[in-house]
Amino acid sequence: MERIPILQMGEFLLVTIQVDMHDQLALRLQDDLTDRIEHTSARGVLIDISALDMVDSFIGRMIATISGLSRIMDAETVLVGMQPAVAITLVELGLTLPGVSTALNVDRGMHLLRKRVGHS
Amino acid sequence: MERIPILQMGEFLLVTIQVDMHDQLALRLQDDLTDRIEHTSARGVLIDISALDMVDSFIGRMIATISGLSRIMDAETVLVGMQPAVAITLVELGLTLPGVSTALNVDRGMHLLRKRVGHS
Repeated sequence: MERIPILQMGEFLLVTIQVDMHDQLALRLQDDLTDRIEHTSARGVLIDISALDMVDSFIGRMIATISGLSRIMDAETVLVGMQPAVAITLVELGLTLPGVSTALNVDRGMHLLRKRVGHS
Repeated sequence: MERIPILQMGEFLLVTIQVDMHDQLALRLQDDLTDRIEHTSARGVLIDISALDMVDSFIGRMIATISGLSRIMDAETVLVGMQPAVAITLVELGLTLPGVSTALNVDRGMHLLRKRVGHS
């Protein structure tokens, strides 16, 4: 069955979204991610969307949900790799991803997470 | 157009393969990867295949090609996240991925790369 892989990098988790999301896949990702946060005691989650040419309200909501879930499990979420065209569309549509931190790329997202959890 | 994202993490690049590979996608990945190695001066490439339930000779050959390309551009390649069932099938089929280094997961792959390029 299709699932989105979650990679552990030190005390952070990386999720790369490459495929079209649908309900089942999004629910499964939430389940998998909360399981992994529990088992690995991860302090942060990076969601990379550099492969996405567009982000609609469904994906926006999913990202907000993951961010909320992570927060109550004591892990910060940072969204990375957003394409310029995606950012423009999001703002034009009024989807401003409230409560979700963003960074330009994985490196900067990692840096932000390390600062947030007090490592640098 | 569909493409596989390449994430930069410090001086290494991470490629997560989640979708079914086909000729065009594999060629494009090789192009993108060599471009990125050139532009970022990356010293290592991690290929994560934890999302793949099966690896056939096409994917095996693609991994070997990427590994060879990276090597002549002075970057090491490590294949990570192989599922146990995939390893069993590969060995049964006689596809032993000659010349390709493997590690259990991204963390160990990064550790191996750091050792190879002389950082620890």
